[in-house]
Amino acid sequence: MKEHLFADHPREHCGLFSVFGVPGAAQLIYTGLFALQHRGQEGAGIATSAGAKVHSTKGEGLLNEVFTVRPPTALPGHLGIGHVRYSTTGSSRPQNVQPIVCECSDGLWALAHNGNLTNAKRLRHIYQDSGAIFQTSTDSEILMHIIADPQYRTRTRRVERALSELEGAFAFLIMTKHSVMATRDRFGFRPLSIGRLGQGYVFASETCALDQVGATFERDVLPGELVVVDEKGIRSSTFCEPVAGPLGQCIFEHVYFARPDSIVFGQNVHETRIKLGRQLAREHPVAADLVMPVPDSGNEAALGFSQASGIPMDYGFIRNHYIGRTFIMPEMAQRQDSIDLKLAIVPGVVRDQRVVVVDDSIVRGSTCKRRIAALRRAGAKEVHMRVSCPPVRHPCFFGIDFPSSGELIAAGHSVPEIRDYIQADSLAYLSLEGLLGAFEQPGDFCTGCYSGKYPVAVTEEHSKQDLEKT
Amino acid sequence: MKEHLFADHPREHCGLFSVFGVPGAAQLIYTGLFALQHRGQEGAGIATSAGAKVHSTKGEGLLNEVFTVRPPTALPGHLGIGHVRYSTTGSSRPQNVQPIVCECSDGLWALAHNGNLTNAKRLRHIYQDSGAIFQTSTDSEILMHIIADPQYRTRTRRVERALSELEGAFAFLIMTKHSVMATRDRFGFRPLSIGRLGQGYVFASETCALDQVGATFERDVLPGELVVVDEKGIRSSTFCEPVAGPLGQCIFEHVYFARPDSIVFGQNVHETRIKLGRQLAREHPVAADLVMPVPDSGNEAALGFSQASGIPMDYGFIRNHYIGRTFIMPEMAQRQDSIDLKLAIVPGVVRDQRVVVVDDSIVRGSTCKRRIAALRRAGAKEVHMRVSCPPVRHPCFFGIDFPSSGELIAAGHSVPEIRDYIQADSLAYLSLEGLLGAFEQPGDFCTGCYSGKYPVAVTEEHSKQDLEKT
Amino acid sequence: MKEHLFADHPREHCGLFSVFGVPGAAQLIYTGLFALQHRGQEGAGIATSAGAKVHSTKGEGLLNEVFTVRPPTALPGHLGIGHVRYSTTGSSRPQNVQPIVCECSDGLWALAHNGNLTNAKRLRHIYQDSGAIFQTSTDSEILMHIIADPQYRTRTRRVERALSELEGAFAFLIMTKHSVMATRDRFGFRPLSIGRLGQGYVFASETCALDQVGATFERDVLPGELVVVDEKGIRSSTFCEPVAGPLGQCIFEHVYFARPDSIVFGQNVHETRIKLGRQLAREHPVAADLVMPVPDSGNEAALGFSQASGIPMDYGFIRNHYIGRTFIMPEMAQRQDSIDLKLAIVPGVVRDQRVVVVDDSIVRGSTCKRRIAALRRAGAKEVHMRVSCPPVRHPCFFGIDFPSSGELIAAGHSVPEIRDYIQADSLAYLSLEGLLGAFEQPGDFCTGCYSGKYPVAVTEEHSKQDLEKT
Amino acid sequence: MKEHLFADHPREHCGLFSVFGVPGAAQLIYTGLFALQHRGQEGAGIATSAGAKVHSTKGEGLLNEVFTVRPPTALPGHLGIGHVRYSTTGSSRPQNVQPIVCECSDGLWALAHNGNLTNAKRLRHIYQDSGAIFQTSTDSEILMHIIADPQYRTRTRRVERALSELEGAFAFLIMTKHSVMATRDRFGFRPLSIGRLGQGYVFASETCALDQVGATFERDVLPGELVVVDEKGIRSSTFCEPVAGPLGQCIFEHVYFARPDSIVFGQNVHETRIKLGRQLAREHPVAADLVMPVPDSGNEAALGFSQASGIPMDYGFIRNHYIGRTFIMPEMAQRQDSIDLKLAIVPGVVRDQRVVVVDDSIVRGSTCKRRIAALRRAGAKEVHMRVSCPPVRHPCFFGIDFPSSGELIAAGHSVPEIRDYIQADSLAYLSLEGLLGAFEQPGDFCTGCYSGKYPVAVTEEHSKQDLEKT
Repeated sequence: MKEHLFADHPREHCGLFSVFGVPGAAQLIYTGLFALQHRGQEGAGIATSAGAKVHSTKGEGLLNEVFTVRPPTALPGHLGIGHVRYSTTGSSRPQNVQPIVCECSDGLWALAHNGNLTNAKRLRHIYQDSGAIFQTSTDSEILMHIIADPQYRTRTRRVERALSELEGAFAFLIMTKHSVMATRDRFGFRPLSIGRLGQGYVFASETCALDQVGATFERDVLPGELVVVDEKGIRSSTFCEPVAGPLGQCIFEHVYFARPDSIVFGQNVHETRIKLGRQLAREHPVAADLVMPVPDSGNEAALGFSQASGIPMDYGFIRNHYIGRTFIMPEMAQRQDSIDLKLAIVPGVVRDQRVVVVDDSIVRGSTCKRRIAALRRAGAKEVHMRVSCPPVRHPCFFGIDFPSSGELIAAGHSVPEIRDYIQADSLAYLSLEGLLGAFEQPGDFCTGCYSGKYPVAVTEEHSKQDLEKT
Repeated sequence: MKEHLFADHPREHCGLFSVFGVPGAAQLIYTGLFALQHRGQEGAGIATSAGAKVHSTKGEGLLNEVFTVRPPTALPGHLGIGHVRYSTTGSSRPQNVQPIVCECSDGLWALAHNGNLTNAKRLRHIYQDSGAIFQTSTDSEILMHIIADPQYRTRTRRVERALSELEGAFAFLIMTKHSVMATRDRFGFRPLSIGRLGQGYVFASETCALDQVGATFERDVLPGELVVVDEKGIRSSTFCEPVAGPLGQCIFEHVYFARPDSIVFGQNVHETRIKLGRQLAREHPVAADLVMPVPDSGNEAALGFSQASGIPMDYGFIRNHYIGRTFIMPEMAQRQDSIDLKLAIVPGVVRDQRVVVVDDSIVRGSTCKRRIAALRRAGAKEVHMRVSCPPVRHPCFFGIDFPSSGELIAAGHSVPEIRDYIQADSLAYLSLEGLLGAFEQPGDFCTGCYSGKYPVAVTEEHSKQDLEKT
Repeated sequence: MKEHLFADHPREHCGLFSVFGVPGAAQLIYTGLFALQHRGQEGAGIATSAGAKVHSTKGEGLLNEVFTVRPPTALPGHLGIGHVRYSTTGSSRPQNVQPIVCECSDGLWALAHNGNLTNAKRLRHIYQDSGAIFQTSTDSEILMHIIADPQYRTRTRRVERALSELEGAFAFLIMTKHSVMATRDRFGFRPLSIGRLGQGYVFASETCALDQVGATFERDVLPGELVVVDEKGIRSSTFCEPVAGPLGQCIFEHVYFARPDSIVFGQNVHETRIKLGRQLAREHPVAADLVMPVPDSGNEAALGFSQASGIPMDYGFIRNHYIGRTFIMPEMAQRQDSIDLKLAIVPGVVRDQRVVVVDDSIVRGSTCKRRIAALRRAGAKEVHMRVSCPPVRHPCFFGIDFPSSGELIAAGHSVPEIRDYIQADSLAYLSLEGLLGAFEQPGDFCTGCYSGKYPVAVTEEHSKQDLEKT
Repeated sequence: MKEHLFADHPREHCGLFSVFGVPGAAQLIYTGLFALQHRGQEGAGIATSAGAKVHSTKGEGLLNEVFTVRPPTALPGHLGIGHVRYSTTGSSRPQNVQPIVCECSDGLWALAHNGNLTNAKRLRHIYQDSGAIFQTSTDSEILMHIIADPQYRTRTRRVERALSELEGAFAFLIMTKHSVMATRDRFGFRPLSIGRLGQGYVFASETCALDQVGATFERDVLPGELVVVDEKGIRSSTFCEPVAGPLGQCIFEHVYFARPDSIVFGQNVHETRIKLGRQLAREHPVAADLVMPVPDSGNEAALGFSQASGIPMDYGFIRNHYIGRTFIMPEMAQRQDSIDLKLAIVPGVVRDQRVVVVDDSIVRGSTCKRRIAALRRAGAKEVHMRVSCPPVRHPCFFGIDFPSSGELIAAGHSVPEIRDYIQADSLAYLSLEGLLGAFEQPGDFCTGCYSGKYPVAVTEEHSKQDLEKT
């Protein structure tokens, strides 16, 4: 069942995984996507080829839901690409589930995308003006139109030329019946890694998915690079000039989005988060009896905070494993109800204690407020909230789908105001400098959501679009 | 869940239904499609609009299966189009389910098609060469590309001009956010009727669907006509010169496909079939004790045979109502198994009798053979098989998806050979003249599947394609 | 998912099928039950044994729905019993789906029942008083309690003795790990036949199910007989004295319930119905232009009416094959809505005609009224309604679940009143004498629903219960 | 769909929840059971009453799966009981899902059970001998038969007398249309707590479920106590003499089974586990660089180990939240496959480190072995395994369903042998004394699975049964 609404053009978080040169590619892609399920739970899809046809299965929901009726084993072939998808409420539409599969002049193509194209709307209009029809409301579809455009199609290095038209953030997996391609935008906003598996190749948004299938991490796809694998082997080319200034790697991947066991942009996420916790303790010390994480998102930062402050850590919250990850669920209403169902308090841990609660973000504030109230009901004497990154005050145009300004509490309120709202005894965020200090090459990260300074100019249109967002 | 295979470009039987100007259009479309379910059981979809957006639900299976999770009431609007779909095995793919919804330069369009375009492949290549991408393997998608083509889009009468590019058989329902369009090819191969419902308009493949929703039959959409309904009212135009010679109305609609209570091409189907049965008795009399139909497809012809021959009719076969219509099920294997489950014999009716069995077709012959054997086991003394149309010996290029020549017993065998194969005491088919005699304007029907003579030239490519079909 | 309500003790129509001594018994039972699906669509179940354990699958809905997840092939064994079930709204509860499987002192038993026990409530109370617990609200469960009762269990001929406690109407299939038993009450209210299949035995409520699996009809289980099949062979015994007077075979099986191709109580149903139609024409002649059946329930009677009256038959109604049998659907509301969806009129057949509509019953009258109005709208000049049995004016205590008196139009209204209500030009029912005249041994039928005279005394309690029924 | 196999009589872990005197009881029960989902994932059910009827929904799977089609809101009433269920492979049968609902002489009863009755088989035979039939293969059904037995039913204090017949471990929730009862066996093997919610009462297996619904913990149901709540209020009675010696509270609830935020047998589980970890460090110190838990089962013990040893804690394992709890999944095969999918390693944490891995158990050893190998591949220099309880070497007859001796590695192997098998550099288990030292009243716990000494004599039959278990 599918519904077309075509109301808005959503930005998406996603997970990508691809295999070339391994029999039973679909099962491997399924397993790899399973390790990337945290990057998207609204939809999943796999396309494969044994050389002659493109086979695909897609659907809404978690991987195991999508592949219940038609298991991955039903998709033949030694090469393929896969996708897990997250989207906001309005745009959770079946036809947008990826990979997008289509037929062009020279055959069948499939495509999976992680990121947000800032010129997608303009390109879409250009192509529509010249007669193109769009059957999804994703940014991603535009790339297929450009690839199929005769002015690119008939040239050598066609895919490179097509990619060079795109602006914004992207990691793409592209597939034909014979080959797999992997590429990242020139600022390197979104991650994409290359691995080896026997004689074959594997691509994944995070290295944790390489580990999951037993592949060896080789290197990241470089910003501005297009990697092509076919039966002749692997080839690399660049589709654009290197960025003159610093890169725009998404710092939020390290703070929140990626899995701790992944190496993202050359650095392990777990270690980064430990460092953030330590720095947070240094910047915002507090006299307290125990440090407790909001599990599991605050686990590492709380540990770092405990290490640096000397305040012992304890588990004051217990997570119910039968509920999904709150931030990532599409419906506001569901979010409200599921909060109480997700975390429980261990009263004996917090009773009569001064507790430091560490997490990686405060989004709306309402959940945080409710938890602090619950801690007090359980007997906590003081509750000090510590957040392992600066307040998110600006929109992201490069693929992280933050709530709108109206919903983001830090967008419209000062730290003291937030502290008063959530009724904490104290509240502190890590400074931007403190955050950047955790990285070896801090200049190569985009910190736009904290600083409002983006690595590439953002047109008026986008800011406006953001404000108008429902 | 969806699978893309893109292996072949299927011809399709389908049912179309549309409403303009009635609140709750989706429920009416659902009800209308229910009366057209015999025209397609592999998929169904509805697209509606309240003026601003296009909403749609589509899926594989019967109407009630597709609309179990998201009922028609979830689709708002006073205008919309709907589709039920039948296809052959290879092409039963989710992405092909209609209506096709897409966004062009000037907004959203939806489209539903019944028929087969004989120049679809050529047009597809032309558009692909100029950069178009196709996301389905249906013939129908090409029309959206032509409509979106600037050379048509910027002209007055754009849809007419786009339609004039198409060759072959088609009835189309086209929808924008504000309007509904209905059209038939210039030979009038496939039926499409206009009805009134209060202040609103209704379009349907067969008049039985108009009756189902309580609409009044107004007239057929004319061959070569485009009817447009929007808030300004209803308008008609022609997109091509009238056909110089006779029309090409599909005679098989009357013989087999349409429901008996429908008026198709100006004539009631029930009455036609009674006439066919009478003529069959006149052409191929036989001394027998009783006439029995293969229910329900042979009901009318058997009645006519009984009337003209004076041989009493009786019900020797009982149909199990818990199984679907055999001919229309996609998988060969299912067909074999389901035969015994569908019809049972009333032994007391046939015992020691000379029976005439009347049906509207013999497709592969295997089912017929098995039933004749069962009749003999039940004690029938003689079994005379009578078929209410001539042998189908030629392919259809205009939307009826016959089995391939290899499977169609009449394509490769003489009537005596078929008789011997099915082990009937006698076998006779209605003559082509006898068939045409049932119509007031016999010259306006396509009889290509019987005669090999088509109303419009068929290129070599198509014949070849047919032979290569799996 | 199951719901326990335990509100009332429903009487049930059902279909029974059993196999002994054939490998893959479950598939055969599935196929046999498919031919009996018209006897119950609310639930289905199969229990089998290969000698050591009892395996079973049960569920709500049609056979193909119940066996979608776990196919019959998952149930091993060469012996087994199966059941399809119909029940009224209130009692459509999962736990009531049969076969009932339980463990007693001497092992596992399974049981399937068609009929209604008139002393079930009393026996239930007796056993509950002595400590029994009941986990279903079916009449049928009581038999297991009696069989397990030490006073019967320790005797020779225990099952016979247990059966002799039951009053009312029943056909039972009973199964242990090693054997299958089949039995009918001493009045023979409900049918049950024995067939042979190779070296094995088959039991079925109707012979059409024997035909379906290729078994040969041997004879009926006799009233008061218990047939046991195990590895030693087949044995017969009687559990009660023969009935002194006439039997109580349910005449409604012939009029309405059974399939036309079945032989029920020694006589073919199709032939009976033809006779009823002929007699109806003789009793209630009318000047008219055509006779039309309400398909398929009135098919045979209409044919007989046409034969006897000389008025030609035609098909004025077309049945939509994508909807189930109206009478048998559990919810009132569904019934109302589905009527228009089920039958369509062929206007050309009835326009300006005086039509005789023949059916086997008028239940509430509302459907009939609506159809007559539709016929008039389609142009019928006169509409004469003919019913092939007398008005149902009395409750059935023996297994046919008529609507309550309040809903049964004939229970509270005279024939002229009904005619006025349905707005027919004339209305006539077959006389009771006319009905009985169709049978060779008319005295052996229960006609209680027509005459109020039952073959066995009905206590006050039951009449009252009926009136109180919701 | 249901299958009856009746092959064995399984012991079960389960979770119980009940509400009396709160409107919308079913939603509360649903929420409470959600907090107890870790106690059973194979089935769930709720029965409620508004005073007149018993309504219930039951099914296989997780709570949200069972209540997808028919939500808890469909069950009316202010009182009810609920159950989540875990069972071993062979006994995962639909008919065994609780609550069991049945009708006795004096009306409807429902019942939910956590525990294992050691005389169930004997009692079952006794009741079967006197004529009872059993429709499930659960231990629990026997209680309904005893309650319904006239010798108990007609006495005052009938339920008490019935309960006094039972031997073994049990917590029962019993429900009539008007009342709810809660009881524990006289040794207090299984936990059951009483809470207040407004004017109403709540019962739950663990206090975490009281917290979940906002109820206040009042006290535990006492060993040998029966608590009855109806419209007259709450009453307590005892159904047996107090146990002369110590109680038999299940120590495994604290070590593994209960949720850390629960208070079980008067003591918080989280605190217990911290203590166990500390004691483990004292008993089995090791020179290492970091302590890491197997999340989440080893979280608390690892923290305690780190605290007592001074070795810093870190998160070397990352848990994939999209997979269920391994120990509790029914199929061996699933267990093997899901292991790699559940835990990932953070290579940077363990590389070149001497790590201490802390968990609460080693069941088969194969998972542990695989993880240690993975740690070495990730670069760990030394791997020291520490288990926060003694080796499980003996069967449990009181409701914990350990794998059979053949599968339990500690049952047949010494600690050094296990260490060699899992290829750890060292392996140590907490001593029994160390374990007991964490409790204030250590004598009141059953430690049979570690010591082979049970608080009540275990008959030969049971030991034998255990060995014969497949």
